Amino acid sequence: MRAAVLFGPGDIRVVQRPVPRPGPGEVLVRVAMCGTCGTDLKIFDGHFPLTPPFGEFTPGHEWTGTVAAVGETVDEFAVGDRVCIEAHSGCGRCDNCITGRYTACLNYGNAAKAHRATGMTANGGFAEYAVHHVRALYPLPANVSFADAVLVTTAGTGLYGLDVAGAYIAGQDVAVLGPGPVGLMTVQACKQLAARQVILVGTRPSRLELGAELGADHVVNAGEVDPVRAVLDLTDGQGVDMAIEASGGPATPQQCVEITKRGGKILVVAFYPTDVTFDLSAMVRKDITLYTSRGEGGNNVKRAVAMAGAGKLRGEQLVTHRFALDDIAEAFRVLREREGDPMKVVIAP
Amino acid sequence: MRAAVLFGPGDIRVVQRPVPRPGPGEVLVRVAMCGTCGTDLKIFDGHFPLTPPFGEFTPGHEWTGTVAAVGETVDEFAVGDRVCIEAHSGCGRCDNCITGRYTACLNYGNAAKAHRATGMTANGGFAEYAVHHVRALYPLPANVSFADAVLVTTAGTGLYGLDVAGAYIAGQDVAVLGPGPVGLMTVQACKQLAARQVILVGTRPSRLELGAELGADHVVNAGEVDPVRAVLDLTDGQGVDMAIEASGGPATPQQCVEITKRGGKILVVAFYPTDVTFDLSAMVRKDITLYTSRGEGGNNVKRAVAMAGAGKLRGEQLVTHRFALDDIAEAFRVLREREGDPMKVVIAP
Amino acid sequence: MRAAVLFGPGDIRVVQRPVPRPGPGEVLVRVAMCGTCGTDLKIFDGHFPLTPPFGEFTPGHEWTGTVAAVGETVDEFAVGDRVCIEAHSGCGRCDNCITGRYTACLNYGNAAKAHRATGMTANGGFAEYAVHHVRALYPLPANVSFADAVLVTTAGTGLYGLDVAGAYIAGQDVAVLGPGPVGLMTVQACKQLAARQVILVGTRPSRLELGAELGADHVVNAGEVDPVRAVLDLTDGQGVDMAIEASGGPATPQQCVEITKRGGKILVVAFYPTDVTFDLSAMVRKDITLYTSRGEGGNNVKRAVAMAGAGKLRGEQLVTHRFALDDIAEAFRVLREREGDPMKVVIAP
Amino acid sequence: MRAAVLFGPGDIRVVQRPVPRPGPGEVLVRVAMCGTCGTDLKIFDGHFPLTPPFGEFTPGHEWTGTVAAVGETVDEFAVGDRVCIEAHSGCGRCDNCITGRYTACLNYGNAAKAHRATGMTANGGFAEYAVHHVRALYPLPANVSFADAVLVTTAGTGLYGLDVAGAYIAGQDVAVLGPGPVGLMTVQACKQLAARQVILVGTRPSRLELGAELGADHVVNAGEVDPVRAVLDLTDGQGVDMAIEASGGPATPQQCVEITKRGGKILVVAFYPTDVTFDLSAMVRKDITLYTSRGEGGNNVKRAVAMAGAGKLRGEQLVTHRFALDDIAEAFRVLREREGDPMKVVIAP
Repeated sequence: MRAAVLFGPGDIRVVQRPVPRPGPGEVLVRVAMCGTCGTDLKIFDGHFPLTPPFGEFTPGHEWTGTVAAVGETVDEFAVGDRVCIEAHSGCGRCDNCITGRYTACLNYGNAAKAHRATGMTANGGFAEYAVHHVRALYPLPANVSFADAVLVTTAGTGLYGLDVAGAYIAGQDVAVLGPGPVGLMTVQACKQLAARQVILVGTRPSRLELGAELGADHVVNAGEVDPVRAVLDLTDGQGVDMAIEASGGPATPQQCVEITKRGGKILVVAFYPTDVTFDLSAMVRKDITLYTSRGEGGNNVKRAVAMAGAGKLRGEQLVTHRFALDDIAEAFRVLREREGDPMKVVIAP
Repeated sequence: MRAAVLFGPGDIRVVQRPVPRPGPGEVLVRVAMCGTCGTDLKIFDGHFPLTPPFGEFTPGHEWTGTVAAVGETVDEFAVGDRVCIEAHSGCGRCDNCITGRYTACLNYGNAAKAHRATGMTANGGFAEYAVHHVRALYPLPANVSFADAVLVTTAGTGLYGLDVAGAYIAGQDVAVLGPGPVGLMTVQACKQLAARQVILVGTRPSRLELGAELGADHVVNAGEVDPVRAVLDLTDGQGVDMAIEASGGPATPQQCVEITKRGGKILVVAFYPTDVTFDLSAMVRKDITLYTSRGEGGNNVKRAVAMAGAGKLRGEQLVTHRFALDDIAEAFRVLREREGDPMKVVIAP
Repeated sequence: MRAAVLFGPGDIRVVQRPVPRPGPGEVLVRVAMCGTCGTDLKIFDGHFPLTPPFGEFTPGHEWTGTVAAVGETVDEFAVGDRVCIEAHSGCGRCDNCITGRYTACLNYGNAAKAHRATGMTANGGFAEYAVHHVRALYPLPANVSFADAVLVTTAGTGLYGLDVAGAYIAGQDVAVLGPGPVGLMTVQACKQLAARQVILVGTRPSRLELGAELGADHVVNAGEVDPVRAVLDLTDGQGVDMAIEASGGPATPQQCVEITKRGGKILVVAFYPTDVTFDLSAMVRKDITLYTSRGEGGNNVKRAVAMAGAGKLRGEQLVTHRFALDDIAEAFRVLREREGDPMKVVIAP
Repeated sequence: MRAAVLFGPGDIRVVQRPVPRPGPGEVLVRVAMCGTCGTDLKIFDGHFPLTPPFGEFTPGHEWTGTVAAVGETVDEFAVGDRVCIEAHSGCGRCDNCITGRYTACLNYGNAAKAHRATGMTANGGFAEYAVHHVRALYPLPANVSFADAVLVTTAGTGLYGLDVAGAYIAGQDVAVLGPGPVGLMTVQACKQLAARQVILVGTRPSRLELGAELGADHVVNAGEVDPVRAVLDLTDGQGVDMAIEASGGPATPQQCVEITKRGGKILVVAFYPTDVTFDLSAMVRKDITLYTSRGEGGNNVKRAVAMAGAGKLRGEQLVTHRFALDDIAEAFRVLREREGDPMKVVIAP
C-alpha cells in the first residue's frame, strides 16, 4: 500500500509499505479520509513524545473508512462496514484503564502492553490502510459522510470534556473560546444539549460566521471588543456557567476566570505554546473548578456518532481543503501557513 | 379574593378570602392558571400529609401568573412580571436544604421554619392570588404562554430526575414508561438532550400519538404487545441506558429492571397505589442504580423555563381541559373520571 | 495438579488436571487459600448462569496465593509475589468495560472475548493452581495474611458499593443490615472512612458480637427488637444517611426504606431468594437513591489491599473454618448446614 | 460588650459596643475563642472586599463559644449549648445557594438579602458576643475543646475541598503542600479517610514535625530536597492521586502538576500574593482536574465536628499562641512577624 512516512522533522514522503495485518481484537480499515490538526504539526516537526522512529512512522489520528478485514474474535464489525475512530486505545490493565480513563493510560506509548494512540504512538491514517483495536472503532450510520466522520472524532474531544465536567447543560450559559474545529463542534454539542446561550469568542470573522451558522447564539470578535466585557454583558454581569477554552491562546485562561460565574466551571481542551499565567486566587475565590480533557475518551465518540446520525452535529461544513495522499506535504504547508484560511484540511488516500 | 378552599374530603368550594400579603423574601402573584395532577386527587380526598386544616386550605401546586406585589428585600421581580413556580421552598437551614436538596427538606411542613410546599403544606394556586418565596419563582419569557408555564413546572420534575440521575443523555437510549404529563415532558427533555432513541411505553393510543408528535422515536402500546420484548428488540437485546418510570403502575418497576441495560439506570418519578414487587436480585446482578426524585428540585425549573423559551419544551399541547375557578369541583370530577381522556386539566381563575 | 471439579449438581470431586498455562497478559498462581460464599452454593447446585460444563468446571472465586508463572507482556508481577484477586476480568472492549464498569461487562461469560469471572464463568481457585488476567490481580503487602487476603476480595465488594454510591462517609450515620462477611467488611470500611455511627443489624448474637469487635458503634438484634425503631432512635428519628443491605432477607429492603433519612441512600450488595416487595412510593417521597453493586469493581480491591496493609481492615478474624482441598465436599456441607455457625469457610489446597 | 473594631488599615482597637440581638433564625453566642488566619491580615490591612466600614467592623471568622440567646424560630439550639461555626451563611435564594453552593453565593456581601460571611462581610468573633444564622452553627460534643473547635472550622475548609473533589480517598496517595493550619487539618482528614500515603511538603521543620505527629506518612522539606523528585520517588514515579495545594506559594501549582498522576486531581485551598504561572498543557496532557474551594461549604463542618468528637481530628495541638481580646493588636503583630513560629494564634475574649 501507499503510506505517508515521516523520515525526519518536516520530511514526510509517500512510499510503499506492506498492508498491516489485524491481530486478535483488531480491525483493518481501508482509509477513506484522514483529518489533520495542530497536533500533527508538532508530530511533523518531531516534537511529540513516544512516536515510532523516523522512517517507520505514519501519522494521522482523525481517520475514517471501510472495514477491510477483521482479526480474531472480532464479530462487532464485518468487511464493508463504514467506521470512524477515536485515537486512544488503552492498555486495558492499568489503574486508569480499568476505571475507564483510557486517555490517561499509565502505559501510554507501551505498544507491548497494547496501548495504541493511532497516528501518535502507532501508525495512523495517512495511508491506504490502517489497523486499530475494535474498542476504538465506531460504526457509521449511512447518512454520515466520511467528511462528517472526521469531525465526529473531533466532536468526541468536546463531548468527553463536557462528560468529564459533569455537564448537563440544559438552560445554562456557555462560552466557547476559540472557533477552531474543536470549538465549533463543541458549540454545536452545547446547543444540542439545550444550552440557553452559547457565546463564541474568536478573532477570525470567517470562523465566527461559521460558528453562528452552526448554532452559536452570540459571536464576539475579541479583536474588536473586550471579550470579558462582552460576555459579562450577555450574562447580566454574572458570567457563564461554563467557559470552554479551545483556543490555546495563553491569555484566554485568565479571560475564562473572569467570564465564569461564581461556582461555575472552566473546561480546557487546548494546548498552549508556553506556560500560562492567571489569577488562581480569583478562581479559588469564585469556587471554580477547572476540568481538562485530552482526546476523545469515555466512549464519547459513540455519542458523537449518534448525534451526527440524527443531524445534530455537522462536520462536513468544516472541511475547507481536501488533498490526495500524494500531496500530503503540500497539505501540511497550507495548514501551517494558514493559506486560504483553512479550518479542517483532510487527506483522501 | 376568590379562592377554592377544601372544607373536607371531596368538598371544595370557592369562597371569599383576604388577599395574602407577601412577607420578607416573598412575592404575591395574580394567578393566571393552575394545573391539576394526580397528587391533587389525593389532597382532595384528604390523603396527603401535613396539609393545612379543612376550611382553611387552598390546594394547587402548578400555578403561574403575574407579580402583583413583592415583599421586603425582593428586587429579583417587579410588579407585572410573568412568572412560573416550583412547588417546594425549603427551610434553608436543615442539612438537606443547605446542601441543595430542598425537596427533601428535613423541616418538611414546618411553616414556622419557612418550609412551604405550595398547594400541599401551604395555600396554593386555586385562587385569584397566591404567595410564594422568591427562591421558588422563575421569570417567564414572553413567548412562553401561561398554559406552557403550567407544564414547565411539570417538566421540572422530569429534569430534576435526570439531574439526580447524573444524566448526560447524548447518544443514549431511553425508555419512558407512562405517557402522562410528567412522562411526555420528559420525552421532550430527553430528546432535546440528544438521546439516540426515546421509546415511549403506554396503553392509551391518544397519549402515545401525542408522544410521537412531541418527539418519541418509538411508541409501544403495552396493551397490545409485550413492552419488555418490544424495548429489547429496539435495543439489540441489550436494553436502554435509562428507563424512566412515570406511570405509577405496580407492574412497571419490574419491566424497568428487564428493559434496562447492564450498568444502566432506572429513574422513578411516580407514586404507586400499593407496595411494589420486583426482582431486586436482577437489579443487583445487572449493576443498576435506581434514582428517585420528588417534585422539581435542584433549580431545574430554571432550566425548563429556558428550554421552553427556546421552543424546546412544548406544554400547551398537553392542556386538554380548561375550567374557570368556580367550576373547580367539576374539573376534579372530569379528572377523576377521565372524562374526555384528560391529559392536563387547568383552572384559570 | 489436583483440582476440585463439579461433575453435576452437588457432585464435586478432587481430580488430577493439567496445570493451566498463562496466556498473554495472564498470571499463573499457586493457590494458597480460597474462600467459599453463598454464590458457591448456587454454583454447586448448578444454578448459576454461564458456568463451564459439568466435568470441566472448577469453582472458587475468592482465592489468593503466590505467582508461579507469568504470561507474555506481564511485568507487573514476578514469580514468588503474593497476590489476591478480584473475580471479574472484563472484555475490555464493550461500552461498559471501556467506561470502567467491568462487573457489568456486556460480553459477560464470553471467554472468546476474554471475559473471565474466575470460579464462575472460568475455572477458579478450588485447585492447586489458577490463572487470572493481570488486571484482576493485586500485590499483597507482607503483613497481610492469606486468610486476610480472602476477605480483602470480600471487602472489595463493599468498597465498590460505597464507591458507586458516591460515598464520602465522614461524619455520617450508616446502618449495615446483615452481619455476614460482606456486611462485616463493610462495617469496618465505613468506620475507617470516619462514619459517625455504624449501626449493625442482624439476628445471630455471635455475628453481632464480632461486628462490635470490628468497630460497629451499635448492634441491633432484629430478633429481639424492632430494627426500624432501634435505628430511628439512634438517629434522632431522622434515619441514617446510608443503609447498606447485605443480608439478602426479603424483608430488609422495606426496612431500609424506613430507616433511611430523607435524601439518603440505600446500597444493596445482596441477592434474594425471591422477588422483593416494598413501598417504592415512600422511597420516592423521601428522595432516596438505591444503588447496587455486584462483585468487586472499580479497582476497589486495590483500595482494600492498602487498607488491610495499614491494619484498617481485618479479615482473618472472620475465618471460622479451614478445610483441605480434599475435604471440599465436607466444607460445603458445613457451609450449607451452618454447622458450627460458620462465618467464612476456606479451602487451603 | 467589648469588641475589637477596625478603625483603619492596621488600626484595631477594643471598644465598648452594644451586644447584638439575634433576629429570626439567628443565634447570639458568647464567644469563647476566635482564631486568626492569613485572611485576617488582609482584612486588617483593609484589602478585603465588601467589609463593613472602618469604625464599625469587628473581624474574626473562626470563633466558637456558648449560646447566649436564640432568635425567633430557633429550636435547634438552647442557651448554654457549646457551638462552633462556619463562616458563610448564604442568601438562600440565588441559583448557587438553592443548589447547595453557598460559599459561592451570588448575593455575596448583600446583608439585606441575609448573606453573612462572619468576620468578613459582617461582624465576627473578636468580641465578647457574636451573632450568626442557625444554619452556620454546629453543636460541639463535650469532649471537643474550644481550642479544638477553632480548628474544626479550619478542617471544614479541607473537608469541603475533598468533598468538591469527589474524593473517596481510601487506598490513594495524597500530597499536601503547605503545613499551615489548613494543610495540617487536611493531612489528618486524608489519613482518617484511609489514604495509603499522605506526603506532607513544606519548609519549616517544626511544622513538618507536627505534621508527622498528626499522621503524615512522609514529610518532605522542600528547602532541602526537590519536592517533585521526592514525591515521585515515593509513588513509583507515577505521582499522587491527589495533590492538595494549601501553601499559597506561587511556585507550588506547577509542582502540583508535576507530582500528580495521570488522571489525578489537584485541589487548591490557598490564595496567592500574585498571579500564578504553570504548564497548563501538561495538566491537559495528564487529564488532571483542578478543584478549588473557598471556606467551609457543603455542610462539611458538621462532618468535621463528628470527626473531632471521635478523636479523629485534633486541633488544640495547633494552637501555639493565646491572647486576651485586649491584646489583639499584639496578636496580629506576632502573626504577621511570625514571632515564635506561630501556627494558630487565638484570641480568648
